[in-house]
Amino acid sequence: MIVRRFQKVVLLLVLLAASVSALAQKAVEAPIHALFDQQTADWNRGDLDAFARCYKNSPDILFIGSTISRGYAGMLERYRTTFSTREKMGTLTFSEIEVQPLDDRFVTTTGRFHLQRTAAGGGNAGGIFMLVVEKTAEGWKIVRDVTVPSPKQ
Amino acid sequence: MIVRRFQKVVLLLVLLAASVSALAQKAVEAPIHALFDQQTADWNRGDLDAFARCYKNSPDILFIGSTISRGYAGMLERYRTTFSTREKMGTLTFSEIEVQPLDDRFVTTTGRFHLQRTAAGGGNAGGIFMLVVEKTAEGWKIVRDVTVPSPKQ
Repeated sequence: MIVRRFQKVVLLLVLLAASVSALAQKAVEAPIHALFDQQTADWNRGDLDAFARCYKNSPDILFIGSTISRGYAGMLERYRTTFSTREKMGTLTFSEIEVQPLDDRFVTTTGRFHLQRTAAGGGNAGGIFMLVVEKTAEGWKIVRDVTVPSPKQ
Repeated sequence: MIVRRFQKVVLLLVLLAASVSALAQKAVEAPIHALFDQQTADWNRGDLDAFARCYKNSPDILFIGSTISRGYAGMLERYRTTFSTREKMGTLTFSEIEVQPLDDRFVTTTGRFHLQRTAAGGGNAGGIFMLVVEKTAEGWKIVRDVTVPSPKQ
């Protein structure tokens, strides 16, 4: 009898721990998904300045693609040069977003992006990415951005 | 006179703070550089099992390249399949290694790798990478690995 009651208590504790863990994961995931929703809305409105605000405004943030570059100002400049018209920006969608917590302050997040564009706008583009996102006083901000382009879209 | 003495004290404090900061950066960089040295030595000895020990032995570690994959066991399996002979492993070198601390427990590190190989071994290969490295009880271990292959080597 006592053993059964003990088993019940243990089972309840395990379920409670699992729920707390699931809630904690949800608590981290919600703001990261909100960040991608914000980026999508800003991009598809053609507002690069708003889009950029999902990145931490710091000279230390890093972008890794075919080269490595550093800093918020340079990033904004590159975006403005590469996506100088609405047609070149096209329509952005994210998919397969996953959030992988590192600790209370940092998470990584992986996913795919797709740019739907006219041939004149540069044609479709896309790829896989991994970001490191930091919980700052201004909310969750991207501090590392690694993009692996996919050859076919 | 008092102002001058105050200026001297401030100058000393600034120099001290700069030295402490430089020392802290060095303290983080040294073990990360040691990790790359270890990986290079293990790889070039043909010892994949030793090479893999620089990664955290966890099902949650992530590898992002042309696809996203997860976990230590799968990684070791892929390495064994892809690099099944010494000729396919070739000779590994790392360059342009930089360490960017996130907090006391995590750093990112970026750099380039190059595989020198015979045509039969698959030819030269290489690319840019960013890792997230965690300070664990067993030392600094890689927990995220994103590699952007370079087309020409």
